[in-house]
Amino acid sequence: MKNSMKIGVLTSGGDSPGMNAAIRAVVRACEYQGVQCLGIYRGFQGLIEADFKELNARSVKNIINRGGTFLKSARCDEFKNSKGRKKAYDNLINENINALVVIGGDGTFKGATAFQKEFNFPIVGIPGTIDNDINGTDYTIGYDTALNTVVEAIDKIRDTANSHNRLFLVEVMGRDAGDIALNAGIGAGAEEILIPEQDMGLERLLESLDKSKKSGKTSSIVVVSEGDQIGKNIFELAENIEKNLKNYEVRVSVLGHIQRGGAPSCYDRVLASRLGVGAVDALLNGETNVMVGIVHNKVKLIPFAEAIKSSNQFDVSLVRVADIISI
Amino acid sequence: MKNSMKIGVLTSGGDSPGMNAAIRAVVRACEYQGVQCLGIYRGFQGLIEADFKELNARSVKNIINRGGTFLKSARCDEFKNSKGRKKAYDNLINENINALVVIGGDGTFKGATAFQKEFNFPIVGIPGTIDNDINGTDYTIGYDTALNTVVEAIDKIRDTANSHNRLFLVEVMGRDAGDIALNAGIGAGAEEILIPEQDMGLERLLESLDKSKKSGKTSSIVVVSEGDQIGKNIFELAENIEKNLKNYEVRVSVLGHIQRGGAPSCYDRVLASRLGVGAVDALLNGETNVMVGIVHNKVKLIPFAEAIKSSNQFDVSLVRVADIISI
Amino acid sequence: MKNSMKIGVLTSGGDSPGMNAAIRAVVRACEYQGVQCLGIYRGFQGLIEADFKELNARSVKNIINRGGTFLKSARCDEFKNSKGRKKAYDNLINENINALVVIGGDGTFKGATAFQKEFNFPIVGIPGTIDNDINGTDYTIGYDTALNTVVEAIDKIRDTANSHNRLFLVEVMGRDAGDIALNAGIGAGAEEILIPEQDMGLERLLESLDKSKKSGKTSSIVVVSEGDQIGKNIFELAENIEKNLKNYEVRVSVLGHIQRGGAPSCYDRVLASRLGVGAVDALLNGETNVMVGIVHNKVKLIPFAEAIKSSNQFDVSLVRVADIISI
Amino acid sequence: MKNSMKIGVLTSGGDSPGMNAAIRAVVRACEYQGVQCLGIYRGFQGLIEADFKELNARSVKNIINRGGTFLKSARCDEFKNSKGRKKAYDNLINENINALVVIGGDGTFKGATAFQKEFNFPIVGIPGTIDNDINGTDYTIGYDTALNTVVEAIDKIRDTANSHNRLFLVEVMGRDAGDIALNAGIGAGAEEILIPEQDMGLERLLESLDKSKKSGKTSSIVVVSEGDQIGKNIFELAENIEKNLKNYEVRVSVLGHIQRGGAPSCYDRVLASRLGVGAVDALLNGETNVMVGIVHNKVKLIPFAEAIKSSNQFDVSLVRVADIISI
Repeated sequence: MKNSMKIGVLTSGGDSPGMNAAIRAVVRACEYQGVQCLGIYRGFQGLIEADFKELNARSVKNIINRGGTFLKSARCDEFKNSKGRKKAYDNLINENINALVVIGGDGTFKGATAFQKEFNFPIVGIPGTIDNDINGTDYTIGYDTALNTVVEAIDKIRDTANSHNRLFLVEVMGRDAGDIALNAGIGAGAEEILIPEQDMGLERLLESLDKSKKSGKTSSIVVVSEGDQIGKNIFELAENIEKNLKNYEVRVSVLGHIQRGGAPSCYDRVLASRLGVGAVDALLNGETNVMVGIVHNKVKLIPFAEAIKSSNQFDVSLVRVADIISI
Repeated sequence: MKNSMKIGVLTSGGDSPGMNAAIRAVVRACEYQGVQCLGIYRGFQGLIEADFKELNARSVKNIINRGGTFLKSARCDEFKNSKGRKKAYDNLINENINALVVIGGDGTFKGATAFQKEFNFPIVGIPGTIDNDINGTDYTIGYDTALNTVVEAIDKIRDTANSHNRLFLVEVMGRDAGDIALNAGIGAGAEEILIPEQDMGLERLLESLDKSKKSGKTSSIVVVSEGDQIGKNIFELAENIEKNLKNYEVRVSVLGHIQRGGAPSCYDRVLASRLGVGAVDALLNGETNVMVGIVHNKVKLIPFAEAIKSSNQFDVSLVRVADIISI
Repeated sequence: MKNSMKIGVLTSGGDSPGMNAAIRAVVRACEYQGVQCLGIYRGFQGLIEADFKELNARSVKNIINRGGTFLKSARCDEFKNSKGRKKAYDNLINENINALVVIGGDGTFKGATAFQKEFNFPIVGIPGTIDNDINGTDYTIGYDTALNTVVEAIDKIRDTANSHNRLFLVEVMGRDAGDIALNAGIGAGAEEILIPEQDMGLERLLESLDKSKKSGKTSSIVVVSEGDQIGKNIFELAENIEKNLKNYEVRVSVLGHIQRGGAPSCYDRVLASRLGVGAVDALLNGETNVMVGIVHNKVKLIPFAEAIKSSNQFDVSLVRVADIISI
Repeated sequence: MKNSMKIGVLTSGGDSPGMNAAIRAVVRACEYQGVQCLGIYRGFQGLIEADFKELNARSVKNIINRGGTFLKSARCDEFKNSKGRKKAYDNLINENINALVVIGGDGTFKGATAFQKEFNFPIVGIPGTIDNDINGTDYTIGYDTALNTVVEAIDKIRDTANSHNRLFLVEVMGRDAGDIALNAGIGAGAEEILIPEQDMGLERLLESLDKSKKSGKTSSIVVVSEGDQIGKNIFELAENIEKNLKNYEVRVSVLGHIQRGGAPSCYDRVLASRLGVGAVDALLNGETNVMVGIVHNKVKLIPFAEAIKSSNQFDVSLVRVADIISI
């Protein structure tokens, strides 16, 4: 069976550091297992346009340390309707591809599920997104790197906060999940952390900042998740604080896209390597419609249906730690 | 004369990486030369409030690698009128301080000049600002570090730009001087660089981006100086590009305050060490009303009047290099 | 009971990045819980010499991002005999300290166990070592940072390896545990990884390198754990390779002490914060003779006796991943 | 004349960060000027073996931020005799290459000079080496990056030195030139700096370290240039210090090859871009047998004969600064 196998691999959705390491692992696991591997450019769009390229072990050298994805990624509205998906299917059949590895987030897995239902085509997913908002895996590829990027950026901002006795509001990514804000906030020594899962309310924030000032703190960092619910946006929040707390000089910093890029951390490279190998193992074992995740440091398979469930869970014990160490 | 000497040192204006290294050098040069040294907290404000602390060689250990300024900095409107300056003078006299080293930018040197005129008090300045907008010195302390910070940030953004075939507008600091934009733009391989000294005009920018796309470039970075003159701001510029160039997906990233902080580069540490030693040398030689700068890799003295002249010069040859290598 | 509580905290053994974050969390958890906290300098040596200092929430500001330990660490032969330990005990009683948090590795926990047995003194440990060689916890504080440091260093070395078509042997820390070598080796894309837990043998290494060259690889990295068993040391190994494989130009790089220092990664800061809070929780709950560890991302208590067991386990599945992705 | 021009570019000698940026600038300047450009792999060896590849503006995308040289480098004994050089010449003529840009250090320029004398072939050099040991240019490409790498490494080592009250001897590159040691030593806050240009002598070093200890310093870093003259090597020096100064615990760290690699600093990227453009300008102006260097921040031409002169100069004022700030 192996001999007739030909696996296609693509990245889709927002890029994340470690996607290249995952592609590399898929490609090399294919070569190791004696199956062919085809790279599909620009995600589902490239599937529809038959933008393919054969890949072997040497094609993926010197990319484990690079951010982004050399297969590129793209939005693809066409794949959302069955006509587009049919084109994609025809291209796969034409090219004799008989299994897919898709690397991305929940949008990617939703697309894969729809495709899988229509054509009963073997697909295994790998969670690649900095947001860590995929259910059923402890970590997504790129999340650990993004945490380090955020913490390094806030370390720099704190130099200025300390030098000028200022309050900085720092916006980090995470529209639905506060994982980045909560962990990077603890790591950066933030005084307050605002996450979408929990509405602190403006009043409690003001109280806390006031108390913090009175306790002798001369500068403060507040980490704000994109999806936070206090006010319209971070600039309005800044105004509200300056209006209410006269003794604070407030500055805003929106970290933005630097959070998506950069050389992946060791953890993300190892995770990506394990999941890439695991995805090829899974396909060779006849698995489909599942994501390869990491649970308690072991590679596990999780049905797509499970993975795309929004969990909105967050680690309450971490919130307690954040409260204690910002005393 | 030495024995009776007591030098006060302060940092003022926006903080910059290497200010701590400069303070350390001033303090240790004082100890080396056998003169006393007093740290003045929060710039001119601390001078007015007599917020002083004796410093010796051991007080400044383990700070050469830290961003910001441990003496802190602050705006000080009071120092802008003669009543405030008189208070400051009285405090200096009370404390037997008979010379000052002020580390900062042109605002700092203007304040120092006014003070010097009124009280004929020995003052030497050290240029500390990331903007490199001080006349008469090839480099200001913090500028080299800021360039590296910007370039590292854009390297990360380019990962995403490449992965998604996007155009990114990246705003960097520099209200009046395009030095950061021009050098970091070349270093980051930007396709276009917009600086305050030269108004490119929207049309020429659009033309150039269009040509760039047609030449086969799939992603682009445009580095925009804060003080750039196209449009109201960078967000309006982004809208204008998307409106006029249909094939571009545009994103904006405002790097903001991360540019001010961080561990100083080796160059900034060495520069700060040389200028700190040079400032104490100058005061011991009876100099006053001058800035210690670096010209052609040698420590030089430049009158404050010269240093605060706005030059609006920029290196035309660099603009040519930028044009050629972004082909 | 709380009101009468006074907790001493010390760091012992080799320093690791995140120790400062752990101390900070212990100190702030004490303040949060309303118990006093005393810093003990230079580990067990400072215990014997009564080198103590009161710490409060403000004493530990701006240290979460710093490598090393501001409480310092030291070897202490005196604590290995009961006379020394008696002195330490007397000092604790004199100072009204009635519980200890010790941060370090297995040597630290062995000392703590001996002390605990003799005086029935409440002690809780926190695993701080880059080697990840403590039983019963998934991670030790500093390990994740060390992995990133190693991977960044090898990324640099690979630039030269690639440019010159060379083979580099890179020695990393880990006398008894190959965790750093195995994970950083995968992360750095090493062709071979030599760990103490598994003797590959010179012949198999030579065979593999020869095969690698023939497969078209022009440069190679071999990551070698300190405790590896091929030959006397890494320099002899290099000679053996050059002697046996004529087409290889070999260079050696011993990464050494850079692996111990540096700003901790976000993961290590969060881990240290959680374990520091957990240690104080444990003492307040009447626990003793246990280490606070992290198991499956939850804070757990592990008896010292269990923690210091040498396990010599390693993740066989990781070795397979390493083999596959270096194809 | 332009139309018939075809420029070959190669890198030779030890690689240095920024070489890729220089190649990129040469290639794009060629395209800008309308002349053809050919990449020559593995330095002079590739010249002899006709290992050529056409390069255009798109061939050099995404390399400005990468260490090493994608054209690779190699030692080439064959180019040292006229027979080898004749082969190289024939290949150039066959390929219609009528000018060369060589990027490297003094070995490279010596080879170029010999070749130029025999065949009167237009050659322009670009100084690429981390050692900054080329005469007639203020900076060589890669030097600034290497300084930052060394300073970051020593910052990490200092964490451990501080935590354990130890003395670290850190060996840095520079067989003949102490520029790296002197500048990185100042930047890293070293207590002593040993450079090849000045023999301090063991006794004076011991005296100074002893005095340093007595002044209250608890840890120390001594930066040692490869070419330093005290003792046989750094390990012997460590033994000598431990033997003579009982109160010091000494450790050795040899930084080695990490100094050659890594993403180039902004300065090196800009410098490489300017010199690359300058080299093509020079060839188009009919220049030959010269190096393009940077003097007082301006691009200048320096005859090879001048560039390869060993100068053994060092900045005495920097030694004074080092002495003062390590007080």
